[in-house]
Amino acid sequence: MKSNQAPATMPPSIVNRQPSTIPLFLRAALGESTERPPVWLMRQAGRILPQYRALRQRFPDFKAFVKTPEAAAEATLQPVDELGVDAAIVFSDILVVPEAMGLDYEMIEAKGPRFPKTIENQHDVDCLRSGVEAAESLGYVLEALRISKRELAGRVPLIGFAGAPWTIFAYMVEGGGSKTFSKARRLLYTEPVLAHTLLQKITDTTIAYLQQQVAAGADLLQLFDSWAGELTPTQYRSFAVPYLYQICAAIPEVPKTVFAKGAWFALEDLAELPCQVIGLDWNISPAFAKEKTGGKKVLQGNLDPCTLYSDTKTIEKETLLILGDFGGHHIANLGHGVYPDTPLDGVRAFVETVKNYER
Amino acid sequence: MKSNQAPATMPPSIVNRQPSTIPLFLRAALGESTERPPVWLMRQAGRILPQYRALRQRFPDFKAFVKTPEAAAEATLQPVDELGVDAAIVFSDILVVPEAMGLDYEMIEAKGPRFPKTIENQHDVDCLRSGVEAAESLGYVLEALRISKRELAGRVPLIGFAGAPWTIFAYMVEGGGSKTFSKARRLLYTEPVLAHTLLQKITDTTIAYLQQQVAAGADLLQLFDSWAGELTPTQYRSFAVPYLYQICAAIPEVPKTVFAKGAWFALEDLAELPCQVIGLDWNISPAFAKEKTGGKKVLQGNLDPCTLYSDTKTIEKETLLILGDFGGHHIANLGHGVYPDTPLDGVRAFVETVKNYER
Repeated sequence: MKSNQAPATMPPSIVNRQPSTIPLFLRAALGESTERPPVWLMRQAGRILPQYRALRQRFPDFKAFVKTPEAAAEATLQPVDELGVDAAIVFSDILVVPEAMGLDYEMIEAKGPRFPKTIENQHDVDCLRSGVEAAESLGYVLEALRISKRELAGRVPLIGFAGAPWTIFAYMVEGGGSKTFSKARRLLYTEPVLAHTLLQKITDTTIAYLQQQVAAGADLLQLFDSWAGELTPTQYRSFAVPYLYQICAAIPEVPKTVFAKGAWFALEDLAELPCQVIGLDWNISPAFAKEKTGGKKVLQGNLDPCTLYSDTKTIEKETLLILGDFGGHHIANLGHGVYPDTPLDGVRAFVETVKNYER
Repeated sequence: MKSNQAPATMPPSIVNRQPSTIPLFLRAALGESTERPPVWLMRQAGRILPQYRALRQRFPDFKAFVKTPEAAAEATLQPVDELGVDAAIVFSDILVVPEAMGLDYEMIEAKGPRFPKTIENQHDVDCLRSGVEAAESLGYVLEALRISKRELAGRVPLIGFAGAPWTIFAYMVEGGGSKTFSKARRLLYTEPVLAHTLLQKITDTTIAYLQQQVAAGADLLQLFDSWAGELTPTQYRSFAVPYLYQICAAIPEVPKTVFAKGAWFALEDLAELPCQVIGLDWNISPAFAKEKTGGKKVLQGNLDPCTLYSDTKTIEKETLLILGDFGGHHIANLGHGVYPDTPLDGVRAFVETVKNYER
């Protein structure tokens, strides 16, 4: 993965392009040695930008915002225009998938999502739509991708995304965020067959949804496994990894990134997935990640988002440390989504430090 | 640590006893090879027991409960009587320390703690009491220890405890629980000198408090670093480990356990602390923990608390797996505090499996 040669797993969409037209971000995602690491931020489309906050004011309801493709596309492009990041990520939410499957959610300001109805038994699972049938209600995300792609006009690649099956499962069973996710985790012990049935339905839906995202213009896909760190290593291997595998294998057309927050213990398993990039949270040292993934994957991350509250000098120093530790062969990002109250100057200092980096 | 010889670091309180009178739990904590692993559960004194729930009803206010030594002692002894665990842990809360330092908190039912006033600047830190001056208001915990010790009458050892400085710091700055603890973590970047000053004041108070706990009868002390997993490895080394070290070094009289939840990345540092036992959460495989601590510490843990929602057979199987992985030389516990809605039968199955274990 560390040579200038296209790796054997290069997706078809890339193989047909002239090498010189492949953008920096995609070249890095494919493991090429690039002139500098590309940089973007998880949650870059969001409250850190004054332009976003202005746009958001037009939609008192968050879900109405997500479901208005023109607005979502505008939020998608804002960080490219304002911060000069090397990739755009479509503005949406991972919870559109459970909603499409038939489990409605509310987004409560400053508190997070809440599902009035949760999954408790086999009947609840049977009632859920899945696969293409569920994904077909997500046309608004596809339209946001199409508009974004057109308006980007090739400036930078466009990232599509979805929640990983275990994380979506956790929300559907728990009904919202949780300190322990003990309701969702309990079901893995008490109803393992039911759990696998639900995980498979989520997986089928996610595959259909992500395939459509690629058709609508997504250049790379990222899977967010936000609650990966709640599971034991054994559980992650049986209730998470096989579904991640199915999804990655079902979409060979574009490179894929798996970001499993807190799953330091699963890095060796994640390194075997048919994906190209592994996202890292800020707990994981570059050395540990490199050792565990054995050079099989491109690594993405992993500056502590709180670093961006510092002064410019500290941000530069910490960013350069991480770039050095990764040896330049990686995709620069934070180790978590950027926090909403992060000063814009801090974000700019991070982006600029990476863009000025010379290996 | 794996022989029948008393380790060189054996605390004076133990050295003076006849070997045959040292209880199982303490022998295991000192690294002796024991006939079976001792077992107890974090949060064993609490809502899992009907006797606790009945006692709790007499105190609508949680803090009034904690501050009534007779009631706290009764809660301390209940799990010994009802579950047959090998150690008692004094019923209290880690937040009594910030309160003693001058930062009052409220315990909001089903939500957790809230500090109406938080630490924001140097003046706030200057106003805090610390050391012996702060600890002297915690006489009610000492009295609960004395009553518990008397009523235990030597049946099992009595564990005292405190929050680790970083975790107490996080509550004092954040004002309660948090999804990201970004306010507390931010301060480590923006005001490192202030952060160290506050951490030192917490440390001084904790040392005075724990020394008094030993004088009141605590046979072993456990430090809970509940938010350890929020820090980067570098931050943990500079803002957490040195304070844990000071505390452990200041109380040579009894064995000490450090439970740093989520701090898998710091196991090598923790292995150098002058403590005897390292607590492990359920993410960490016994093999990983053994490798990183290099046999220097006794390990405690780490069954996933959600296992106890299963049927007896599954609980037995999972418990035996963990006992086998640790090779019998460890202290059996969960990887987190037992969840309040855990069925009592599940807890009993866990305790009994360990007690019937033959290496």
